[in-house]
Amino acid sequence: MFDSTLSAIGERDWDTGAVDEPVRIATVGCGNYARSVSLPAMAAGAYATPTVAVSGDPDTRATLADEFDVTALDYDGYEAGAATDDYDAVYVATPNRLHLPHAETAARHGKHVICEKPLEATVERAERLVAACDDAGVRLMTAYRMQTDPVVRRLREFVADGGIGAVQRAFGDFTFPVLGGGGDPDQWRLDRELAGGGALYDVGVYPINTARFVAGDDPAAVSATTRSPDPAFDEVDQHVDVRVEFGGDDGWVGNFSASFSGQFNTELELLGTDGRIAVRSAFEPGADREVTVETDAGTLEFAGAGADETVAEFDYFAHAVATGAAVEPDGADGLVDMRTLAAVQESAASGQRVEL
Amino acid sequence: MFDSTLSAIGERDWDTGAVDEPVRIATVGCGNYARSVSLPAMAAGAYATPTVAVSGDPDTRATLADEFDVTALDYDGYEAGAATDDYDAVYVATPNRLHLPHAETAARHGKHVICEKPLEATVERAERLVAACDDAGVRLMTAYRMQTDPVVRRLREFVADGGIGAVQRAFGDFTFPVLGGGGDPDQWRLDRELAGGGALYDVGVYPINTARFVAGDDPAAVSATTRSPDPAFDEVDQHVDVRVEFGGDDGWVGNFSASFSGQFNTELELLGTDGRIAVRSAFEPGADREVTVETDAGTLEFAGAGADETVAEFDYFAHAVATGAAVEPDGADGLVDMRTLAAVQESAASGQRVEL
Repeated sequence: MFDSTLSAIGERDWDTGAVDEPVRIATVGCGNYARSVSLPAMAAGAYATPTVAVSGDPDTRATLADEFDVTALDYDGYEAGAATDDYDAVYVATPNRLHLPHAETAARHGKHVICEKPLEATVERAERLVAACDDAGVRLMTAYRMQTDPVVRRLREFVADGGIGAVQRAFGDFTFPVLGGGGDPDQWRLDRELAGGGALYDVGVYPINTARFVAGDDPAAVSATTRSPDPAFDEVDQHVDVRVEFGGDDGWVGNFSASFSGQFNTELELLGTDGRIAVRSAFEPGADREVTVETDAGTLEFAGAGADETVAEFDYFAHAVATGAAVEPDGADGLVDMRTLAAVQESAASGQRVEL
Repeated sequence: MFDSTLSAIGERDWDTGAVDEPVRIATVGCGNYARSVSLPAMAAGAYATPTVAVSGDPDTRATLADEFDVTALDYDGYEAGAATDDYDAVYVATPNRLHLPHAETAARHGKHVICEKPLEATVERAERLVAACDDAGVRLMTAYRMQTDPVVRRLREFVADGGIGAVQRAFGDFTFPVLGGGGDPDQWRLDRELAGGGALYDVGVYPINTARFVAGDDPAAVSATTRSPDPAFDEVDQHVDVRVEFGGDDGWVGNFSASFSGQFNTELELLGTDGRIAVRSAFEPGADREVTVETDAGTLEFAGAGADETVAEFDYFAHAVATGAAVEPDGADGLVDMRTLAAVQESAASGQRVEL
């Protein structure tokens, strides 16, 4: 493992190269994250290209049309089927509770869907979203960018190969000061109805889903607590702490946390019977993952892999659409997390462990 | 803080220098830890000195008498008051359930007590132990060596000074493969009656107590899960995961874990509103604490402080005995953890959050 680590990180293990024409993507919902991260990533990639952007704001439409050379639509136009010849797939990046109608529209137009995480604001609505795509015969990917991060994928291989023995435990944290740096206090992330939850839904899903992905096991039970001492977060969880009992041979436990305030922090650790993996800047968009792997054979540290997981994310989706390849973070994967998030909320409210 | 860190770590902030004669210590229970860590630490210190050792094994008595130049007694001799003129205090390092009778004997002889953690195998027995020392008017210190670790004490000051803002969260793990490296499968740590619990009691108490110490808050509620997939641990918890809700202004949460098998690991993290502290080799006896402090002012990394916390532990105790200074890890401090451990076991059994 130690010799092959860096070279393997450079490889896109899923890439057959069999994509002749870029997959054209309409972005529905053009908030800050879509504008600053997702659209540039599509533009930078080899297999995806942004061709349409949907926004309710005329200024945003004008800016995006200019910056990314896309056809800019309002929501009525999108619903009515404007410019459907100009895109093959839809990237849904609206507030969580609006994922369902926009994905339904995409499915109705016969367009494939890549939908931001979590899939929706409730399990029931997420199930309807998955069913709409299934019924229409379009592909659905849940936009878990960490699953296409080259470093994370290499760590998954290392774990699957027994590199740290059996996984015993994970730790993870994503603290994102959502109101720091001029963050809008009226944003949808703080609206329970639109978001479904607070730090748990927006950032807590990262350590949970990434640990699932790297270890290859799903949650079997959860216990959680939430707290919102700051009145700005009166509708949603400001802080959440979750203990997830995972399935697998002997079972194992993940202790995860997320916050909407505090010092920015993203980290993930996996402790095994024979080793430890620690990742700093684990979930920060486009960040250099700083990785430490400790086993009896020695300690490996690496950084500077230099790959952008969001570029890979849209290329991965486009590659799957173009070639028919399987999508790992599919609707079913997204639903596992939706059910986990609901169980976390139930546990936090009752103080009891909840089985899945 | 950044300039003064290393120099401050060298200081013993509690040391008045007002100790004329070393405090003579009888060690009761001479297992591997006492022989390899505690007795050498007493011998190396300035204020404590080993003068008596109590063991049930004739070979151990002979070896210790030779190696540390101590009077070696059997348990009958200790009980009967042999050599009481040769020691001022007793270090109790037997299996947990034997702490009470040996501390009672010390108190009956008018000797001060430093007792290994956790204080006993049950809350009720620990309360009797504390009462026995109180009634006899002798000092009692719970042997939390991390509370005398110079690096940990400096971090506590930094946190108290607002160095990372308000504490929001802690993570900690102590994984100690108790059967690795020829560990005895018949040892008392795997005996529920003698130990009171498994990984939780033996090593889980480290992250819990150290987080309490550094942050200055006590547990208000716990939720926990334990598991013992390996039949070697059928009487005790092989793995434990604990979420502790701490008091304080806004409250905060610690996610702690401990294991009796797996890759050796000790670590502690504190996340605050304005910074993060991470300590590697956090609880390893005599290890170099590798510390990272991240704030908006920059990142500070330090290691190589070179102090042995167990030498400091016995000197701290001896200094308090000799000068009458307060002992922070006193019986009351040890009882807080005993009640927390009991609540953890109750929560793991019921699946419910337990308030303290």
